[in-house]
Amino acid sequence: MFITFEGPEGSGKTTQIQLLTRYLQDQGYSVIATREPGGTPIGDQIRACLHDVANTAMLPAAELLLYSASRAQLVGELIRPALSVGKIILCDRYADSTLAYQGYGRGLNLADLHQITRFATGGLQPDLTLLLDVDVEAGLARRQRGGQEMNRLDRETVAFHQRVRQGYFHLAQADPARWVVINADRPPQLVQAEIQQVVRGRIQK
Amino acid sequence: MFITFEGPEGSGKTTQIQLLTRYLQDQGYSVIATREPGGTPIGDQIRACLHDVANTAMLPAAELLLYSASRAQLVGELIRPALSVGKIILCDRYADSTLAYQGYGRGLNLADLHQITRFATGGLQPDLTLLLDVDVEAGLARRQRGGQEMNRLDRETVAFHQRVRQGYFHLAQADPARWVVINADRPPQLVQAEIQQVVRGRIQK
Repeated sequence: MFITFEGPEGSGKTTQIQLLTRYLQDQGYSVIATREPGGTPIGDQIRACLHDVANTAMLPAAELLLYSASRAQLVGELIRPALSVGKIILCDRYADSTLAYQGYGRGLNLADLHQITRFATGGLQPDLTLLLDVDVEAGLARRQRGGQEMNRLDRETVAFHQRVRQGYFHLAQADPARWVVINADRPPQLVQAEIQQVVRGRIQK
Repeated sequence: MFITFEGPEGSGKTTQIQLLTRYLQDQGYSVIATREPGGTPIGDQIRACLHDVANTAMLPAAELLLYSASRAQLVGELIRPALSVGKIILCDRYADSTLAYQGYGRGLNLADLHQITRFATGGLQPDLTLLLDVDVEAGLARRQRGGQEMNRLDRETVAFHQRVRQGYFHLAQADPARWVVINADRPPQLVQAEIQQVVRGRIQK
């Protein structure tokens, strides 16, 4: 089972994945939690380049191709092998981030993004995608308060992050069987309880 | 005018580009010599990842996407702006390397490569491509004798490099108006004289 977490920065994906990992492991499942970009040694080198705030000259097409390279490595090196032996994969961001950020956010052609994503993933789709939705300004403020490092994408305008959020809504509406939208403007324990309920339901199916 | 240099490792591209740059500058042209992967600060970060001999786990799809990311950055940041103000660009490797190495060498689908390359370059094609052709084993030996650092691709098998060479021949035959094959198994001065003759002819046209 392949579960992805999507949502704007500051939506609490990292915390929710940690809590869900522990919960599923306590239930006896074998779980791997990973993230994009990164998740492999080569992916982490790509992540460093993507997040480096000094790389202000990075062009949208180059950015898209770097995310896709990290994704291709993650799918081939980690996700497919783990799925083939029955593990549950929890992934912090996946192909939908490319559509939301580079497509809806930056305005790259969605057909190009779909095709490059298909090439990078070999067509692997998540079984379940949880969209942790928060108000854009509240999410950015939460991230700043948390003292987390602000990366190159955090520095984008609020308008950019609004387009990303709307992009996520479009994607979720277009494939309701895969997407579940979670209101993440609530205490982490409540968010986690809802996530566990959704995931339990999917596993039982 | 956009001129690219292709050919297996050890074919002397770097030396020939240096000599041609000096020659054209002496004729009064404004010349920029660059290379792939790399040629920009972001491209150089990508180059380090691609050439790192520790990255033995790199998958062909990830490799292709990294080369394409470096290319997208180079075209947008350096090549297009320079061409628009009338400079001559000499580039050590370009999109044909992707077709030769990742397509013919690694066996990735050529239609996918064409499409991703078109996305990365925005369709920018060289005006002239010089293929510096050398026997594969002679080229590798020359590179080893020269004491140059052996990168991740140099460590591929001779059979891989033979497929790359045949790939170059296919590409050159398919577009004879753009490609000129130069026998690079000769002293550098003779190779350079032929290159200068070809380039002079193109500039006069």
